[in-house]
Amino acid sequence: MSKNVVVRNIKRAASAEIDQLARLGAATIHEAIGRSGFLGPHIRPIQEGSRIAGSAVTVSSHPGDNLMIHAAVEMCQKGDILVVANTSASSHGMFGDLLATSLLSRGVRGLVIDAGVRDTAELRQMSFPVWAAHVSCEGTVKASPGSVNVPVVLGAQVVKPGDIICADDDGVVVVPRTEAATALAAAKTREAKEEETRARLQAGELGLDIYGLRQRLTDLGVRYLDSPPDR
Amino acid sequence: MSKNVVVRNIKRAASAEIDQLARLGAATIHEAIGRSGFLGPHIRPIQEGSRIAGSAVTVSSHPGDNLMIHAAVEMCQKGDILVVANTSASSHGMFGDLLATSLLSRGVRGLVIDAGVRDTAELRQMSFPVWAAHVSCEGTVKASPGSVNVPVVLGAQVVKPGDIICADDDGVVVVPRTEAATALAAAKTREAKEEETRARLQAGELGLDIYGLRQRLTDLGVRYLDSPPDR
Amino acid sequence: MSKNVVVRNIKRAASAEIDQLARLGAATIHEAIGRSGFLGPHIRPIQEGSRIAGSAVTVSSHPGDNLMIHAAVEMCQKGDILVVANTSASSHGMFGDLLATSLLSRGVRGLVIDAGVRDTAELRQMSFPVWAAHVSCEGTVKASPGSVNVPVVLGAQVVKPGDIICADDDGVVVVPRTEAATALAAAKTREAKEEETRARLQAGELGLDIYGLRQRLTDLGVRYLDSPPDR
Amino acid sequence: MSKNVVVRNIKRAASAEIDQLARLGAATIHEAIGRSGFLGPHIRPIQEGSRIAGSAVTVSSHPGDNLMIHAAVEMCQKGDILVVANTSASSHGMFGDLLATSLLSRGVRGLVIDAGVRDTAELRQMSFPVWAAHVSCEGTVKASPGSVNVPVVLGAQVVKPGDIICADDDGVVVVPRTEAATALAAAKTREAKEEETRARLQAGELGLDIYGLRQRLTDLGVRYLDSPPDR
Amino acid sequence: MSKNVVVRNIKRAASAEIDQLARLGAATIHEAIGRSGFLGPHIRPIQEGSRIAGSAVTVSSHPGDNLMIHAAVEMCQKGDILVVANTSASSHGMFGDLLATSLLSRGVRGLVIDAGVRDTAELRQMSFPVWAAHVSCEGTVKASPGSVNVPVVLGAQVVKPGDIICADDDGVVVVPRTEAATALAAAKTREAKEEETRARLQAGELGLDIYGLRQRLTDLGVRYLDSPPDR
Amino acid sequence: MSKNVVVRNIKRAASAEIDQLARLGAATIHEAIGRSGFLGPHIRPIQEGSRIAGSAVTVSSHPGDNLMIHAAVEMCQKGDILVVANTSASSHGMFGDLLATSLLSRGVRGLVIDAGVRDTAELRQMSFPVWAAHVSCEGTVKASPGSVNVPVVLGAQVVKPGDIICADDDGVVVVPRTEAATALAAAKTREAKEEETRARLQAGELGLDIYGLRQRLTDLGVRYLDSPPDR
Repeated sequence: MSKNVVVRNIKRAASAEIDQLARLGAATIHEAIGRSGFLGPHIRPIQEGSRIAGSAVTVSSHPGDNLMIHAAVEMCQKGDILVVANTSASSHGMFGDLLATSLLSRGVRGLVIDAGVRDTAELRQMSFPVWAAHVSCEGTVKASPGSVNVPVVLGAQVVKPGDIICADDDGVVVVPRTEAATALAAAKTREAKEEETRARLQAGELGLDIYGLRQRLTDLGVRYLDSPPDR
Repeated sequence: MSKNVVVRNIKRAASAEIDQLARLGAATIHEAIGRSGFLGPHIRPIQEGSRIAGSAVTVSSHPGDNLMIHAAVEMCQKGDILVVANTSASSHGMFGDLLATSLLSRGVRGLVIDAGVRDTAELRQMSFPVWAAHVSCEGTVKASPGSVNVPVVLGAQVVKPGDIICADDDGVVVVPRTEAATALAAAKTREAKEEETRARLQAGELGLDIYGLRQRLTDLGVRYLDSPPDR
Repeated sequence: MSKNVVVRNIKRAASAEIDQLARLGAATIHEAIGRSGFLGPHIRPIQEGSRIAGSAVTVSSHPGDNLMIHAAVEMCQKGDILVVANTSASSHGMFGDLLATSLLSRGVRGLVIDAGVRDTAELRQMSFPVWAAHVSCEGTVKASPGSVNVPVVLGAQVVKPGDIICADDDGVVVVPRTEAATALAAAKTREAKEEETRARLQAGELGLDIYGLRQRLTDLGVRYLDSPPDR
Repeated sequence: MSKNVVVRNIKRAASAEIDQLARLGAATIHEAIGRSGFLGPHIRPIQEGSRIAGSAVTVSSHPGDNLMIHAAVEMCQKGDILVVANTSASSHGMFGDLLATSLLSRGVRGLVIDAGVRDTAELRQMSFPVWAAHVSCEGTVKASPGSVNVPVVLGAQVVKPGDIICADDDGVVVVPRTEAATALAAAKTREAKEEETRARLQAGELGLDIYGLRQRLTDLGVRYLDSPPDR
Repeated sequence: MSKNVVVRNIKRAASAEIDQLARLGAATIHEAIGRSGFLGPHIRPIQEGSRIAGSAVTVSSHPGDNLMIHAAVEMCQKGDILVVANTSASSHGMFGDLLATSLLSRGVRGLVIDAGVRDTAELRQMSFPVWAAHVSCEGTVKASPGSVNVPVVLGAQVVKPGDIICADDDGVVVVPRTEAATALAAAKTREAKEEETRARLQAGELGLDIYGLRQRLTDLGVRYLDSPPDR
Repeated sequence: MSKNVVVRNIKRAASAEIDQLARLGAATIHEAIGRSGFLGPHIRPIQEGSRIAGSAVTVSSHPGDNLMIHAAVEMCQKGDILVVANTSASSHGMFGDLLATSLLSRGVRGLVIDAGVRDTAELRQMSFPVWAAHVSCEGTVKASPGSVNVPVVLGAQVVKPGDIICADDDGVVVVPRTEAATALAAAKTREAKEEETRARLQAGELGLDIYGLRQRLTDLGVRYLDSPPDR
């Protein structure tokens, strides 16, 4: 069994693909990979306007204990994003500006955590982007064992070490490492198609016509009335 | 019965009244119409500093399905605000920048939705204001019938097509269409009175005296003590 | 018993100590006083970038009724922070720009309230900082008795009149009045130590080494693996 | 406008129809009227095994104030169900055994309240069924005006005076008064059909075959695999 | 300061008074002491039909750590109720049948905990009554210091060691130890009055008349209409 | 990729091991497998007193759509437990007495669903045990594709087809299929040890002594005081 282990070496996707995914944004990528991978609306950015992607270094931690986050720092390298899950829910502020200083010095791009963070003013000043479930002063101990670079669950998604994390103002999406190229291609296709649709919508065309939805409305029994029905 | 209908023609309030209501702000209007019409604290702006009013075009939609939002776009005209309710709660990102592009091209002023939105960075860049219950990447299908321009419920309020939506940083208030003039007059009166009160408060007068509350405190049995009571 | 009383005179900490605490920030102070005093993650700032400290003037109020807030204004003086608790939970917008005008004219530094506020755009324009559990248009009556300057509970903390409130982007921490000097000394010590640690982390040292955590990981049975374990 | 009014006379559906609806159960009726009318999963029974229907006498009340419930009692008659909504959310225990005693003496069948109740042990002993959002000791005042027998909103539904309330272990469904006969006929049809389906399912037939869903699965692109796919 | 202490000797109220309070029920006592002391609707019984009172032995614990509960057992004596608060919220199952066995052997009457419990089937079989915020299998460690018999906060109430806990199906109310006699007298008075009111209500009298509320409705501007207003 | 597939054949653990796990209860098993596998406190039984174990047949479904539950029935056999996850959160009543009739006819032992159920009175009468996140009348469509017998996430746990589900009044725990024997052995050891400890606790020994915690309290700096400290 793989309890309480720190895995040193993980596979990462190609950085060229990761960097292109960053630009495309979380919602587009979520659609491109078949409407999957979204960590849920409870994990929110503490800043506005960041859009990043990177390789997941994962932490399975005890609520209220950030010992394993310290252990994880050593496993991080340039281009990574730290992803922290807890064995049960809590709002503790498990991460602050000192850990961010340490991660920034290693080239880590940001943090995703299904718990709380603190020192948020400082984190914004440092331009270290964070997506978290809570903001909380409540501090932690460094006393409980856990794991680094094992599969973890955030929201309703499994994040495996080396998976690609895409995060922006809409939240966080995980792309399985082995699907990076497929996801990138699909996202680019979608982006191009959206660009074209956007131009048509701006010109006044309707989604009903562009997507051919009028027949569907009829098939579903939707009726058009000139004025409100009685009741 | 009025299930699965799209109503083409709705009555709207006079645009002069609507535009004046916009300036007054949601909280003042809520007070002016007898402390009513607030959609609830769970529907929050995704931007800071917007203050708008407009005529409601309403959508009754299936959670996770934005087909009827597409049908509603065609019913929107300059000065409208799109109001989307679901048949049951969900956090799906049912609305994004493409739909906003389409609405902007028709002169729609904003969106109020009791569900999730996405492309929030883009929506802010486009200056298309949105009030929503969630931000979420989670996409939708276009498969279920629903209605446009029927009465809908958001929070604890009924919104009828053509009702006036007033929205700002404090949230969203609905004013019944037929009460637009009354509401406007009452809100202006309240604004004038508040302006006068504000000046007195700035000069150091107390609300206790301005509102005549000292006697009420006595009547209610509130006692003044010079120092803390023993416990 | 001390129901429905307004206490005129309360003890406050020395202003020099309060002002120095303001600069140190809520999270640092929370740690310095033994990881205590945090009012909880549900009380959030309505603005970004404020960091204040002041003496608590406390209000015990009925939900949906702001009569006692008016009574409390008179008890406030320069450097105070108004702290409002309800006898049961509600999201009513119990406080707005008129009350803020009144408090600002007396030199009050901000508001902490375990309920809702409104006029948030105006409050930000006035630079009157607020920490609240909700934003809501929903107004109140002025009809129910309560107390001013008695001990109150917000989140899981007791706030006594004259206690020091420290608030910033991370939330709100209360420091018992009699522990101001001790808290300040401990917070300064912690700040100095953090400054030193920060420099070492920036230089690439690891928390694992700085805090001596490697042995603890071993003691707790955490094993390092070169590659992922089978499952 | 209709603020702060008590309406004495309301129309009710025929008692024969109401009593037959009671037997059919909330979920069946919800389906029969087109999957509508459910007040939401937050309004739960305080007892197990009750299944009732009755005519709604509605109350629009101030949170933490049960004055209007007292006013509503006088408007209740044999076969009614009292339905209480608040102008904003609260968990106050607004209803207890004394009010239930009064309602029972008038032949009222139960209570539906989007707030809290108390004396729950006594209510169960009295066999007075209650559906509520909370159980709470927290008492109320009798000080604020409101209305009786006006349309109210609970969950996402509008309940009008005289509408039929159907409540059981699954929660509460409202049937518009004018649709009682239609709803009853549809619910009976559905019940008969379900009885037949139940027999076939007990005999081992599959819903896939009874409802003809196999082709739909194929059309939707669902593939059958003999063993798990690789990931 | 009083962090991490176990206080051996606490004052308790007279057992005769405690036992009489038990019979009166939480809601009646809450009213009798001026509508105060309710721990909140989130702390619910895991069984139906228990009604107890006892002296509080308090525990301030770390979430996910039940070491201090073990320390508290030794401080409990016949007639006590164990009251457990956490330094921050969590749903861990911190208490189960073994701890209950230990407490039962000392004559402890029940448990109130602002966290989770487990072994709930066994606890019901043992007739050891529990009021808790969650039911959860999630286990704990025994590693963090805390305190026994210091003031703690549950919901919005301070519970001091030796205060009287009254708990039944409506939830939990705390009575300050020094107010036991006053509370008992007031609760008995209230009970007698309610008994009399109950008889009148059963006979068909209305609360409106018994409490003299008709004039108040008029004063508040409530109007009686014979039929529904328009709109 | 494995979207929209139904996997016919899955591996199951030995029925002898499963049946023994059933008897041991969810909390004991959670502890025995290293405090893991708990699906979370939000998934609760709709009945009291059931304790079961079985092999997971998993469903990944669209919220508000129970088509794939119908597809899953065919894949179930004697001794299985159906486990339903949604692609995003909803409270829809996705399962009722007809589906339970079908499952019972195949020897299925129960249902675990991270959504809502209905017909709860009937389900209890049928003795078909259910653990669900909600009870709701709200019905569903049968229109969206999904998968059967793929890994799914409920709460913070991954459930794979064939994993062992253990459920009772404390909630639901998943045991990986390949760890059945290990888990059973560990759970039996724990049960035996608990039985012995229970006897000692009943005899009046303290957990502090049985578990050797006195030294730990001292090491952690917990001090014993004969009377309350000043503050």
